[in-house]
Amino acid sequence: MADILHRIGVRASVDDVHAALTTIDGLTGWWTRDTDGDPAVDGVVRFRFDIGNPEPDGFDMRVLETQPGALVLWEVVSGPEEWVGTRVRFELAQEDDWAIVLFGHEGWREQVPFMNHCSTKWASFLLSLKEYVETGRGRPAPNDLVVSNWH
Amino acid sequence: MADILHRIGVRASVDDVHAALTTIDGLTGWWTRDTDGDPAVDGVVRFRFDIGNPEPDGFDMRVLETQPGALVLWEVVSGPEEWVGTRVRFELAQEDDWAIVLFGHEGWREQVPFMNHCSTKWASFLLSLKEYVETGRGRPAPNDLVVSNWH
Repeated sequence: MADILHRIGVRASVDDVHAALTTIDGLTGWWTRDTDGDPAVDGVVRFRFDIGNPEPDGFDMRVLETQPGALVLWEVVSGPEEWVGTRVRFELAQEDDWAIVLFGHEGWREQVPFMNHCSTKWASFLLSLKEYVETGRGRPAPNDLVVSNWH
Repeated sequence: MADILHRIGVRASVDDVHAALTTIDGLTGWWTRDTDGDPAVDGVVRFRFDIGNPEPDGFDMRVLETQPGALVLWEVVSGPEEWVGTRVRFELAQEDDWAIVLFGHEGWREQVPFMNHCSTKWASFLLSLKEYVETGRGRPAPNDLVVSNWH
């Protein structure tokens, strides 16, 4: 098992970051515009990314846990086979003026090149989350940063 | 043991990317301006980052292997204790117009929050490498992206 790890600091409160992770409005502001579903605990949120394939790629996440200002935990219930069953964790902590996000995409079965790709994309989306919460403008798909030929 | 993984695509040739990884001129263009040493095999390259500490932080890397257009492999011989003994690998491959960089910072003993931080910083520096090779202008330290309170 292998994990993708990241850490960002947002000049904001952990409550603002928590809202960006637990509302459809917030999620469309930094990850992908094509987001819907139920972001409450036990709900499923549907994220889609149209990068020119016949059907948009994407992920469905079940919300396992949310603690205001502290934690958001999802399980991938549908998506690329490498993702299904993995978990996406956002641990939040306030450090002075910074809302710190300790991020993990946990439980990859193998370190395939797609995992390398997803790690770099997660970094760019987490920096989009930072920008979104700090300025009101993120870079959600389809305006996300192209990091390679895999988009 | 745990690894930081990333993958970027540079619209350039693998030889251009290889040059940016194996010359002092190239390395100062995307990672840190304060770089010197011997980037040939068996040489040691000294990277320093001045983020306001009394002594600049940094790393010394021994070059274990380079293969033109294919590979650069370093071993960390001095730096933060979590880094010493780890290896930094850049595997290069041409895919049409893209020079693909499969990156690994391998052999972390523990998944500490500092590893999360370094993963996000590596992503931002690899995107700086991409920009540098594509446009001639990267974002090396001290002009690197601040991702959190740990810089």
